[in-house]
Amino acid sequence: MTQLTLVDIQNAANRIKHHLIQTPIVSSSLLNQWLSKDIDGTHQFYFKAENLQTVGAFKARGAYNTLAWLKQNQQLPSHVVAYSSGNHAQSMAWAAAQFGIKATILMPKEVSKVKAQATASYGAEVILCQDRQTAEAKAGELAAQGAYLVPADDHDKVICGQGTCMLEELSQCPDVDAIFVPCGGGGLLSGTVIAAKAINPKIKVFGVEPTNASDAAQSIATGKIVKLPQSPDTIADGVRTLAISERTFGYLKQTDGIKLVTEQQAIYWTQWLTHLLKLTIEPTSALPMAAAQQWLAEQKQPQKVMLVLSGGNIDHASRQQVWSQDLISGHQPSLRNYPST
Amino acid sequence: MTQLTLVDIQNAANRIKHHLIQTPIVSSSLLNQWLSKDIDGTHQFYFKAENLQTVGAFKARGAYNTLAWLKQNQQLPSHVVAYSSGNHAQSMAWAAAQFGIKATILMPKEVSKVKAQATASYGAEVILCQDRQTAEAKAGELAAQGAYLVPADDHDKVICGQGTCMLEELSQCPDVDAIFVPCGGGGLLSGTVIAAKAINPKIKVFGVEPTNASDAAQSIATGKIVKLPQSPDTIADGVRTLAISERTFGYLKQTDGIKLVTEQQAIYWTQWLTHLLKLTIEPTSALPMAAAQQWLAEQKQPQKVMLVLSGGNIDHASRQQVWSQDLISGHQPSLRNYPST
Repeated sequence: MTQLTLVDIQNAANRIKHHLIQTPIVSSSLLNQWLSKDIDGTHQFYFKAENLQTVGAFKARGAYNTLAWLKQNQQLPSHVVAYSSGNHAQSMAWAAAQFGIKATILMPKEVSKVKAQATASYGAEVILCQDRQTAEAKAGELAAQGAYLVPADDHDKVICGQGTCMLEELSQCPDVDAIFVPCGGGGLLSGTVIAAKAINPKIKVFGVEPTNASDAAQSIATGKIVKLPQSPDTIADGVRTLAISERTFGYLKQTDGIKLVTEQQAIYWTQWLTHLLKLTIEPTSALPMAAAQQWLAEQKQPQKVMLVLSGGNIDHASRQQVWSQDLISGHQPSLRNYPST
Repeated sequence: MTQLTLVDIQNAANRIKHHLIQTPIVSSSLLNQWLSKDIDGTHQFYFKAENLQTVGAFKARGAYNTLAWLKQNQQLPSHVVAYSSGNHAQSMAWAAAQFGIKATILMPKEVSKVKAQATASYGAEVILCQDRQTAEAKAGELAAQGAYLVPADDHDKVICGQGTCMLEELSQCPDVDAIFVPCGGGGLLSGTVIAAKAINPKIKVFGVEPTNASDAAQSIATGKIVKLPQSPDTIADGVRTLAISERTFGYLKQTDGIKLVTEQQAIYWTQWLTHLLKLTIEPTSALPMAAAQQWLAEQKQPQKVMLVLSGGNIDHASRQQVWSQDLISGHQPSLRNYPST
């Protein structure tokens, strides 16, 4: 496998720049103030709002970059295929429409109606399958018949596309001390660590997983890829992937570690960030803040922290689950005040 | 009363420009496409995201402008007072903190904890009163003792501050055909009609009220101010004001009318805009879209429409009410497809 570098990500950024949104960096002065009570100075939290990206998630970057690269090399297929239960599905459907090619998206049948609907509304053919494994197998069959399969993470051009998010962030907001991004299949985290460490090796880069889906953390701890036996039980549906790949594992080893957060912490920060930032986020987007809260509790100096809000596609059932209790009223976040687990 | 002009609003814009956020204009290509099915061309919806304003609402503009104008005229008081159950409370608390003066905010005791909490967190003294009338009376007492009372709408500098929102919008996105803004006490609508009609008299300006709180519409229809007997039963808590004032009434007569929308329409569009725009909005912010949908059903030509997302401060009870049913899955908005009422 080629070792990807900053230049590959810069090339991806040039490929996508007129076709994707340069999403804003947002912050909350109240949050900065509340979480700085115990230090001399102020922690600063910067949120990269990829929920405001085309299709509502950073995944559009990797999807577009892959097709743009194929076209640049006169290899644009007439038919692409992908399997996904979430943002990669919508991203591939959207990207294929931009290049005027056919897209077939295989989704497990338990996927939310609103996600299948959004994928179809970009013009893709959506096939609902029995489960995740069947969707994957069916995608393989279509690829064997000549369609070009774009995996959600395990592809160099996907990783480079996701890496453009960090390149953009560090141009908008340089000099950060630490970066936290969610880790599912590891595409975003791989692109992030390649870009960030090349720009400034001192920046700490952390991946974040739910405790209930800790395959990447376990893989790093044991030195070999750990595969979850079944789709993990977590509200953070953007990181329900069963395993990372050899390709992403190589890059994940270059991070400063994978942090784990509980379901309750993910829900707590989904509520607070929705409230403070006035943005619609999916629970996966709250994982970085939960991890940053843990990490900062151990820091003595003020830190400048960058957190990726990975997406904003939340379905009705998840929203109901997130808001079943009120975790905001009469409460104020602080580094000492963890939600009960 | 002085007749306010565009120059007054331009002066307000100069006063506030380094202290408030120039909020973005957002849009949704899917929404534009869905609501253009029956015409030759595409309707374009532009949303002014004042939910991303300081304190999460446009009200910060009027509050800041009032204090900045007082200071400019060497009349800055040491103590300001306001009564409000919502965004004006937070705005006055925030603005007073910017000028280093004391703020006392009177709120009816049924106000949500999260709003009282936010107001207090800006450093204001919050006094909870039996009801809206008591809060108003108590504010009057404090004013009689020397505090400067800033009403939510019935004040020239407040109106000019709110008008800066439209000035900014029309510089970001000129050539719109129609503008829709929520109407409670009429401060935003007054500022909007002054600015918009001076810049381009052809732009249509509509206020929007819930059918359950139609005092402004009734006032215009009957030619005299109609006062609601009690706080109206509407999910749109930003427009629960009992009556407009003589001051705002004069400007409201210059609009192209007040549109009425049902509770169900407000809830429907709160869901859809939260989903499509990936923004946290309060139900009042959805009134303009519901009214635009009605208006466009009668238009034969493609229209460029500006809608103000007035705020993003939604409490737990309202959120639960908005999301009690799923109005998104398996459904697609169109001009012919109204939510049932």
